[in-house]
Amino acid sequence: MISRFADLVKSLPRRSPANPFLLLRPAPAPRARAMSDLRAPEHQVAGHRASFNKLGPLVDGAGLFYKPLQAGDRGEQEAAFYEAFSSHPAVPYRIRDAFFPGFHGTRLLPTAARPGEPHPHLVLDDLLAGLDAPSVMDVKIGACTWPPASPEPYVAKCLAKDRGSTSVVLGFRVSGARVVGAGGAVWRPERSEIKALDTAGVRRVLRQYVSSVAEEGPDCALAAAVYGGEGGVLSQLRELKAWFEVQTLFHFYSASILLGYDANAVAAAAPGGGVRVKLVDFAHVVDGDGVIDHNFLGGLCSLIKFISDIVDETPGTQPLAASS
Amino acid sequence: MISRFADLVKSLPRRSPANPFLLLRPAPAPRARAMSDLRAPEHQVAGHRASFNKLGPLVDGAGLFYKPLQAGDRGEQEAAFYEAFSSHPAVPYRIRDAFFPGFHGTRLLPTAARPGEPHPHLVLDDLLAGLDAPSVMDVKIGACTWPPASPEPYVAKCLAKDRGSTSVVLGFRVSGARVVGAGGAVWRPERSEIKALDTAGVRRVLRQYVSSVAEEGPDCALAAAVYGGEGGVLSQLRELKAWFEVQTLFHFYSASILLGYDANAVAAAAPGGGVRVKLVDFAHVVDGDGVIDHNFLGGLCSLIKFISDIVDETPGTQPLAASS
Repeated sequence: MISRFADLVKSLPRRSPANPFLLLRPAPAPRARAMSDLRAPEHQVAGHRASFNKLGPLVDGAGLFYKPLQAGDRGEQEAAFYEAFSSHPAVPYRIRDAFFPGFHGTRLLPTAARPGEPHPHLVLDDLLAGLDAPSVMDVKIGACTWPPASPEPYVAKCLAKDRGSTSVVLGFRVSGARVVGAGGAVWRPERSEIKALDTAGVRRVLRQYVSSVAEEGPDCALAAAVYGGEGGVLSQLRELKAWFEVQTLFHFYSASILLGYDANAVAAAAPGGGVRVKLVDFAHVVDGDGVIDHNFLGGLCSLIKFISDIVDETPGTQPLAASS
Repeated sequence: MISRFADLVKSLPRRSPANPFLLLRPAPAPRARAMSDLRAPEHQVAGHRASFNKLGPLVDGAGLFYKPLQAGDRGEQEAAFYEAFSSHPAVPYRIRDAFFPGFHGTRLLPTAARPGEPHPHLVLDDLLAGLDAPSVMDVKIGACTWPPASPEPYVAKCLAKDRGSTSVVLGFRVSGARVVGAGGAVWRPERSEIKALDTAGVRRVLRQYVSSVAEEGPDCALAAAVYGGEGGVLSQLRELKAWFEVQTLFHFYSASILLGYDANAVAAAAPGGGVRVKLVDFAHVVDGDGVIDHNFLGGLCSLIKFISDIVDETPGTQPLAASS
């Protein structure tokens, strides 16, 4: 396989063809926890869930998230991206720390799906650690989810999904959502419902994400606190946008922005319980080759406009005083 | 045909199905010039040229540009766009005046191609009027040039062109260029050369556009004056970008940014001889339906980064003191 980061990964340790992951940076030992403490994250809203016969991500409850390397080239590509990105001198510390999961190497882990065959996992920061009852939304960014040099059947498959969802029209699509109200009530649309969202549906989900779930329709009670204000989603997305206007290192095809917050902490304006904006899913990131990622940037600007419209329509509540 | 501007054009005069153009706003009489004064513009760099057997745009030398309505729906769509756009209350005057051709209705004109059959033409401002020896570049903006609701064969045709050119990778492609040096020497790449441009070729053409054409390679002698400074291309593109970050009225598929300047006027820092940035070609504009044009915006940001890189690399010359 030709790496998509020819220039970026040449300084990495060489990998054994027999087991390409063994020579990647090994993860530190899980913090004095047994492997049996690992469990499927209850707040996952997109992607495969770990179960008795399926590989899926695991968390240790102490701040780490284990993502099984995906099949084919995808897993290796994602690992190569994390290696290249986390040591790249041109990526500003602030961007890396604020908007990307911390990367702690790869680790072979036994899995329930295949007990006798340990599987390599990316060891990442658990982006929702510290949130008691996180509300989460996964938004896949970009009108186009296929890298330009992809083989033909893959292009056709992605293009059909991009045209069949809101990606082409809006520059993004919602891939999953789970909203936990201050009282603990949960709203979680079915995958079929998520897949069928049109423009009006996306607007509704973006409103529902910041609403009291007990309400009949979206009341946007937390719009100002979660989306608006200093440290809110909008302010973070705008900081990310400023970087995407100039960064020419990576093109993030099919990556998502993961949003997270805790309704109780937000309602109490508690520091550290606040609003998270992170990029995830890097199996289709390619070398930017000196060109900005106009596809991601366009979709990001579109998402910013949607969220900004919601904040403008709901000026009632106070902006969040402090947020992490 | 279902108009793509259902909401926008409902206030337009109804058209006769037999001759859909007759009831569009008629153009004023050409300013005391005979039709025989009309000629093909010598500075045209993209699209069909008018000739004995082909329809093409004409200029009257007194500030007006006559664009024949294109075949099929395209001509009518472009006329509908101009009607809707030029009277839309939500389009800021500054944006309309600075970045779009003035629209003066449609007019039936005899043509050399079909002497007995007058053909409807859009009557527009000649964007290069007042420039003695204009240097011109046509840049088609957007990674995707097909409106989402287009029929299948059209999507496939456009997608092949977008992938075969730099559109998908850069978010724009150069469609034509003609550079006239201060001494009158002309550099004009062949269409086949333009079609074959890769990323490096696009960078080269963007440099050549602001170079003394007598030089062997691009010297970027006019980069600061044309691209940089107050009123320069970059400053105008950034103003346009700010509008595209919020405007949700129109999606400009397959539209171009036309750049123009006069080398002698620029070298003399003469007011009115300055730098022009205009949008053209609106046959595939569709209703924005409350969503920003992320496709155009992404490509515009990419073009801005390319031009900004050239300005940053060539700080030697003085920025233009005054420009129109």
